[in-house]
Amino acid sequence: MDERSQSRIEITFEPSGRRVNAAPGATVMQAARQGGVSLASDCGGRGTCGRCRVRLLAGEVSPAGEDEQAWLTLRELQDGHRLACCCHLRSDAAVHVPPHSRTAEQRLQLDGGGRRAAGEPVIRAVALQGPAPTLDDARCDTARLTPAAADDARGRWRIEPAVVRRLSPLARRWDYRLTGYLRGDRLVGVAAPAARPVGLALDVGTTKIAGYLLDLDSGRQLAARGVMNPQIAYGEDVIQRLDHALVEPGGARVLADCVWREIDALLGWLCDRAGVEREQVAEVCAVGNTACMHLLLELPVAQLAASPFVPACCAPLELPAREVGLGTAVGARLYTPPCIGGFVGADCAAVLLAAELDRAAAVTAAVDIGTNTEIALAVPGRDALLATSCASGPAFEGAHIHQGMRAAPGAVESVRLEEDGVQMAVIGDVPASGICGSGVVAALAELVRRGGIDRRGHLRRGFAGVRAGAQGRELLLVAAAAGGAAADIVLTQRDVEAIQLAKAAVRSGFDALLEHAGVAAAEVERVVMAGAFGCHLPLAAVLDIGMFPPLPRATFEPAGNAAGQGAKLMLLSADERRRAQAVARRTRFVELKTTPGFNQRFARALRFSPGQPEKKNQ
Amino acid sequence: MDERSQSRIEITFEPSGRRVNAAPGATVMQAARQGGVSLASDCGGRGTCGRCRVRLLAGEVSPAGEDEQAWLTLRELQDGHRLACCCHLRSDAAVHVPPHSRTAEQRLQLDGGGRRAAGEPVIRAVALQGPAPTLDDARCDTARLTPAAADDARGRWRIEPAVVRRLSPLARRWDYRLTGYLRGDRLVGVAAPAARPVGLALDVGTTKIAGYLLDLDSGRQLAARGVMNPQIAYGEDVIQRLDHALVEPGGARVLADCVWREIDALLGWLCDRAGVEREQVAEVCAVGNTACMHLLLELPVAQLAASPFVPACCAPLELPAREVGLGTAVGARLYTPPCIGGFVGADCAAVLLAAELDRAAAVTAAVDIGTNTEIALAVPGRDALLATSCASGPAFEGAHIHQGMRAAPGAVESVRLEEDGVQMAVIGDVPASGICGSGVVAALAELVRRGGIDRRGHLRRGFAGVRAGAQGRELLLVAAAAGGAAADIVLTQRDVEAIQLAKAAVRSGFDALLEHAGVAAAEVERVVMAGAFGCHLPLAAVLDIGMFPPLPRATFEPAGNAAGQGAKLMLLSADERRRAQAVARRTRFVELKTTPGFNQRFARALRFSPGQPEKKNQ
Repeated sequence: MDERSQSRIEITFEPSGRRVNAAPGATVMQAARQGGVSLASDCGGRGTCGRCRVRLLAGEVSPAGEDEQAWLTLRELQDGHRLACCCHLRSDAAVHVPPHSRTAEQRLQLDGGGRRAAGEPVIRAVALQGPAPTLDDARCDTARLTPAAADDARGRWRIEPAVVRRLSPLARRWDYRLTGYLRGDRLVGVAAPAARPVGLALDVGTTKIAGYLLDLDSGRQLAARGVMNPQIAYGEDVIQRLDHALVEPGGARVLADCVWREIDALLGWLCDRAGVEREQVAEVCAVGNTACMHLLLELPVAQLAASPFVPACCAPLELPAREVGLGTAVGARLYTPPCIGGFVGADCAAVLLAAELDRAAAVTAAVDIGTNTEIALAVPGRDALLATSCASGPAFEGAHIHQGMRAAPGAVESVRLEEDGVQMAVIGDVPASGICGSGVVAALAELVRRGGIDRRGHLRRGFAGVRAGAQGRELLLVAAAAGGAAADIVLTQRDVEAIQLAKAAVRSGFDALLEHAGVAAAEVERVVMAGAFGCHLPLAAVLDIGMFPPLPRATFEPAGNAAGQGAKLMLLSADERRRAQAVARRTRFVELKTTPGFNQRFARALRFSPGQPEKKNQ
Repeated sequence: MDERSQSRIEITFEPSGRRVNAAPGATVMQAARQGGVSLASDCGGRGTCGRCRVRLLAGEVSPAGEDEQAWLTLRELQDGHRLACCCHLRSDAAVHVPPHSRTAEQRLQLDGGGRRAAGEPVIRAVALQGPAPTLDDARCDTARLTPAAADDARGRWRIEPAVVRRLSPLARRWDYRLTGYLRGDRLVGVAAPAARPVGLALDVGTTKIAGYLLDLDSGRQLAARGVMNPQIAYGEDVIQRLDHALVEPGGARVLADCVWREIDALLGWLCDRAGVEREQVAEVCAVGNTACMHLLLELPVAQLAASPFVPACCAPLELPAREVGLGTAVGARLYTPPCIGGFVGADCAAVLLAAELDRAAAVTAAVDIGTNTEIALAVPGRDALLATSCASGPAFEGAHIHQGMRAAPGAVESVRLEEDGVQMAVIGDVPASGICGSGVVAALAELVRRGGIDRRGHLRRGFAGVRAGAQGRELLLVAAAAGGAAADIVLTQRDVEAIQLAKAAVRSGFDALLEHAGVAAAEVERVVMAGAFGCHLPLAAVLDIGMFPPLPRATFEPAGNAAGQGAKLMLLSADERRRAQAVARRTRFVELKTTPGFNQRFARALRFSPGQPEKKNQ
């Protein structure tokens, strides 16, 4: 035992700072998977796709082999770039995972470690067979094809015309032996003999859409991919999109159509990747926030866009997938889980399900940070489940930041204000051209730690790098001359304020939930950080800017795309759907606007707790 | 009692020959309704629509009042034309009901006398209400609107996006008080407060479509109308249409679309007439023969169009009515009852249900004469229900007859070969321009009775009026000079053969069913004559040409549009649907082509049993 524990080595993944113990000789990818760190891979770790690039920051590893030399230039190899799947660990090490190696597609691989779906499957494949027709046996095709298994009584299922249209020609093509996909007693699709049923789980976010193709028999994930939500063209946040749907003639239809077209293309890609036919896609499950679900299903939004923000429908909904234009098995249904209330949507229900907050043994919070941040709190002792939504805005995603940009090459994604100047990481080994959400948060945290900012968030005059800019004070991060950029990269006072408002929204929401539940912050034993942002924001920085009450770092648990994981569970299992419905019913939606004292709490949450300004900067 | 029976008078309706006992002073319309004789009326018998014109052939009636004088010309009044609703009977009488006074719309009124639907309604209207939203109550609209009645637990129903789209705006328009239409636990529509649910029953025939709008609460018929089936443009019989659907690219879609467009227009007319909104139309039930149902629902027809004529699906089907383009309540379903097998379709199931053959106490047959004639036989002692379909062809409808035409003005509809020449009735008091189905059958029956034809159906040379024509022998009915027509109206040898084939098809099918059931013809106690044809063919003539075994005339019972009546029962009641499904399952489809000895039976059925040629004709 002793020997074994001694033989473990520790690897730190940056920028998340996640530490994983691995056996010597394990690849970086094996360690990443083991620790739930997202790493892109199309080939499954065989060194043939080149997607899992990482940069070695410290430690000893195996020399680069032929596979790696085929994907990386000499210069890249010299700079420490490696393929995670080919790079074997020989000592404690630290690697940096660049953003292009942690795509949405890959975040999904995290969820391989998620719990398995329990209970009754939504779709059951049955072998159908029957004799060829004769003059003496001219029964209709529907009655002719009966389940081979004895437990399915003949003709007990219901069928719809669209499925009959496929059944008759397909029966003749396959000599009266087919696979049928049963959803309860409804035959939703027919396919070639032994064609396994697959399903599509969707997490439709304001910015990104994650799609997962699953084998509905085994629950195994066959393919996954993330794409941008094309509704962005109609507004970066959901309020703008609701407005477009309301004001523009046919706007609601346009918004729904563009996203379903994108999803249908995504489905085509996933089917190709998994080597399955579209007619095998027997079920679809989509989650998103309340506004997103309304826009997806063209539900009325007038009453949702104005106070008191009333959803048209929070109940789970079902409709034929073909109605939204998806090329699936003809009778496949699109299922959308219940929303909880206000803007707390089906995605939050999915998070609660995936993180099992309904069965939490200790006080547990789940936070899904985004343009809208959903926060949920489970207090087992009081049998309470609460959820709220705060308009944290897009600042964390680099929007509304003076030189903000998405996490793409050229983005400053990590900042340290060292004594000898600013140290930073830029995505993609190109000159810095802007700053992404994690860079802004990291820079702000450094200002807080080192006293470069006061309690109210004002940049301190005289702090190293702080200067007067066109719009007030600003912190110089990269001088144009040094960085090769067209202009200096700076963090402005307004940028600070944008993040300040965002963190105050999250913090005050979190505190309000605690107060509603009558729970002290210190009682929270676990905070599930769901979503891309929760996994990729530098946790230390997040804590230092005061976005959460001061809790031990170990309290925070990145959960990958928990909404996607919940969607997958509900794609697979009718019992998981029932459980999510029970969770949604149980969860009390807390409207922050009507919570007494909320404004004061928000004002408090705006404050920072800066350290002492360092001597040399005074 | 004696006095009362003495006070009854008898009125005979031509051309059906139906005799009805009525009280002196009753109107002709009252007598007609009492006896189940179809008579058009839009005003319900108030003398304000002018649709119930009849011609008095014999008897004493009240003088024409002002209402009648407003609708009828002096000439028409002199010729005995009257409005049935204004004409009071003073003695035994005989009236002729011209075809335009017996439209499909009116045949439906027959069915007012049909049995009431039993059991659980398909659609239930519930009053929905809830408080207006506030900041403290921002529940979704679906949860907000709950049934007013205590027995409907809140939120128990399922809802689909299309219904949600209506719900939110309508709730605000009606101050959170609405009517919801529940179909089981599914909310299929919402409407103004207290808006009663209505439904559309359809009998889609090869030639005509009958539509009935019913109040789904009371079962009361609100409006009815018959229109032509526009698929006629693609072929007079279903085989031609199946061919069109198979051969022409997009043909199936074109055939379905044209008929649903016509039905949607029909629905609009019915709603206008009944003064209801389309969103009140909460359910649709359509029956037709198997081929017709396949064409309506675009089911595959390749396997139905060729031996062994396998339907794609005989099971009952359901789909959203909007999928076929009907403007109904957004979530309304179109239900199609089970087909029985081969070409014996949902219309036959509807006839069996309406005529209650499943509960027949004696040996009972039901016959629905048309281009395809369906025959069913119930043998209670042997717990047997059998059905078959015979290709009787369109000759009964005047097609494939040399000078055949539909029953429209100018058609010879009744013929008597009197000693002093041919007596006939022509529809509409215009010169004869052709001969319709009942005229052909009547003429042929006269030939049989008077020996103008031999056993094999050859016109006898030397019989009065028989002459050599361009295509063999022919019987002169109207000389061009006398009739005012452009040409002589004749019945050709080929016409005789067309009817001969048709009657042989029906007779051999009838006999085959009897043989399958092991029942002698004399055991048949009741023959339900369903459909327009069964009601309007001159029964004596039908019997004299040998279309049925020699049974007493009283055995035959015109049942009006029994298929439409069955559709109405199934529109209203889930229990009637279950009963129809049980009937369809129980009914054994008999394929005539594979019945041993069928060809010999068919050959026998071709024969006539002519009387002795009359002396004066020899």
